[in-house]
Amino acid sequence: MNEPLLLTPGPLTTSKTVKQAMLRDWGSRDGDFIQLTRGVCDALTRIAGADPASGRYACVPIQGSGTFAVEAVVDTMVPRDGRLLVLVNGAYGRRIRDICAYINRDCEILECAEDEPTPVDRLADTLNGDASITHVAAFHCETTSGILNPLEDIARVVAGAGRKLIVDAMSTFGAIPIDAEALGLSAVIASANKCLEGVPGMGFAVIDSNDLAAAAGNATSLSLDLHDQWQNFEKTGQWRFTPPTHVLAALAQAIQEHGEEGGIAGRGRRYADNCRILRDGMEEMGFVPLLSDDLQAPVIVTYHAPSDENYDFGAFYDGLHAKGFAIYPGKITKIDSFRIGCIGRIDGDDIRRALAAISETLAEQNIVKRGPK
Amino acid sequence: MNEPLLLTPGPLTTSKTVKQAMLRDWGSRDGDFIQLTRGVCDALTRIAGADPASGRYACVPIQGSGTFAVEAVVDTMVPRDGRLLVLVNGAYGRRIRDICAYINRDCEILECAEDEPTPVDRLADTLNGDASITHVAAFHCETTSGILNPLEDIARVVAGAGRKLIVDAMSTFGAIPIDAEALGLSAVIASANKCLEGVPGMGFAVIDSNDLAAAAGNATSLSLDLHDQWQNFEKTGQWRFTPPTHVLAALAQAIQEHGEEGGIAGRGRRYADNCRILRDGMEEMGFVPLLSDDLQAPVIVTYHAPSDENYDFGAFYDGLHAKGFAIYPGKITKIDSFRIGCIGRIDGDDIRRALAAISETLAEQNIVKRGPK
Repeated sequence: MNEPLLLTPGPLTTSKTVKQAMLRDWGSRDGDFIQLTRGVCDALTRIAGADPASGRYACVPIQGSGTFAVEAVVDTMVPRDGRLLVLVNGAYGRRIRDICAYINRDCEILECAEDEPTPVDRLADTLNGDASITHVAAFHCETTSGILNPLEDIARVVAGAGRKLIVDAMSTFGAIPIDAEALGLSAVIASANKCLEGVPGMGFAVIDSNDLAAAAGNATSLSLDLHDQWQNFEKTGQWRFTPPTHVLAALAQAIQEHGEEGGIAGRGRRYADNCRILRDGMEEMGFVPLLSDDLQAPVIVTYHAPSDENYDFGAFYDGLHAKGFAIYPGKITKIDSFRIGCIGRIDGDDIRRALAAISETLAEQNIVKRGPK
Repeated sequence: MNEPLLLTPGPLTTSKTVKQAMLRDWGSRDGDFIQLTRGVCDALTRIAGADPASGRYACVPIQGSGTFAVEAVVDTMVPRDGRLLVLVNGAYGRRIRDICAYINRDCEILECAEDEPTPVDRLADTLNGDASITHVAAFHCETTSGILNPLEDIARVVAGAGRKLIVDAMSTFGAIPIDAEALGLSAVIASANKCLEGVPGMGFAVIDSNDLAAAAGNATSLSLDLHDQWQNFEKTGQWRFTPPTHVLAALAQAIQEHGEEGGIAGRGRRYADNCRILRDGMEEMGFVPLLSDDLQAPVIVTYHAPSDENYDFGAFYDGLHAKGFAIYPGKITKIDSFRIGCIGRIDGDDIRRALAAISETLAEQNIVKRGPK
């Protein structure tokens, strides 16, 4: 079977049992499916650090990719006369700026280098200096580089300044703890096919219920109106429009396996092991990561492209693919790079096999100088 | 296994082999997946009655439900200063009006009763009387009732008046012929999980390439910008944002099975048989359909709710569900009704078994008077 192990930030390699959960059809208006949706939403609320029984936060799922979920949250939660400050240190931050241009929301950028965490002191200054900023969008991990941003500090500053914080936790949700209640987050956004190890096709947001209730009439898209989506769930338990039934069933199974692995702690431990084995092995071969250990989220590692003139990303990719591994292109603006993911249904032995395949490919392609250009 | 046969307009019962196509993971940036996407898009273009080799039409897939695809087409194809006339005879027509309110597009309605086909003479008058109308949105079959609208006549009038025609073919695509090229359609919209018998999670539109090329800058949503989506496919063969990889793989398999069944003709024949057997059997039991035979699309049949005081839709639904069949609630505004679908991986024998289950349920619940109230 020509199916490589996916060392990517998602879609990623999922368990056989998660995929097998898609071997039945569901009627989307059926009681069984309503119950399935409810169970998934409650579990996601818990993983976000909130108690579904309290009703303080609501989980609203949405069809589409993670970007659809991000756009839905910004469009629903930022009022038409609001102003959003986006904390940018990568492509996903810039994408929120692009979204704001499309949906006509006032937007300001606080940008730092892609290998630097969000500067909390500059954030405080910016909020102090601009009272018109109503919302802040932050990234738990910027998947562009794999950097972990100081979420607790960011949340403290934003709360202290009396603004609402929207967190893109796309590539950390389920593997790195996030406590929406304690941090007073307005919304946490993620998708099925990252650290939860489901298949792609839906995202979701866990949103402060009071903020959500106040968000009626904000959205400029019917499909992406999370307030309307939420209202329909509240009234009927049903999705407004045809849900990705099989994707949801896979996510329900994935969440069960997440629990069996020990929840966030167990999942995070395996990924941290994967990341450490990867970084150690790559270092031994002479590769240089973009980020130091303390900035690295155990999600995806960015490496400088080797300086060797025999290195060509396409050929390197193909060499690894032929050995059963799919890696990921770089997305960093200023340097030539590639990325290797640590997430998905993979363990230390898989990473070791990947390292062996990389070593073989280096030898085959006579790539000797592995340090940065 | 507690899995009912789905007699609904989708999500519907799919073949085992379509579901099994989801038993592998795909890297969304991988050459194999790019090829899979390309093959699906070419096949969908052909099913829409266009030749992918000519380039006159482009198929642009989009994440989400059918409504996401409809909103994406309206948002992308109707310029911000355009004006859309929607031909309404059901809930999906009214939904396009709602979309226009969200995305701030000028919209006019030509409405007729839900059991009447779009009145072509009134359409001609409306277009003659309002030069500001740039686009018309029509429904091949309005799933609300199951009515087949006179698409050829509509297309002739719209083309004669020099306007662009957008067709929602959600519930007919792949089972009733549509000839985008011959009818000069601007866009045909459908989704994976109707007559193509894929699983839900993506829609698509087959769009006139010249119209699409002229649509840059129209969209007011990044996620739903089909021009941008198309440009990215043209440049890289890749989806802009994470695609529902498993859903696409299932659709590829479903399209292969569609071809093996004899394409649109074979699929349409089976559905027409299903519909005839259903209508005959229900008539024998005394049920009265909303539509006469000549207006009925072989997709979904609306029945008047029985006048018997023992009839209760919830109990009737549960009785059938316990026997392994899921039917669908009515959506008609003015009368109490229910619906039974003819589409999906079901054949005449399945319909006969469903009729037997209906007969049993009627007896159990002592529903004697089956005619309209």
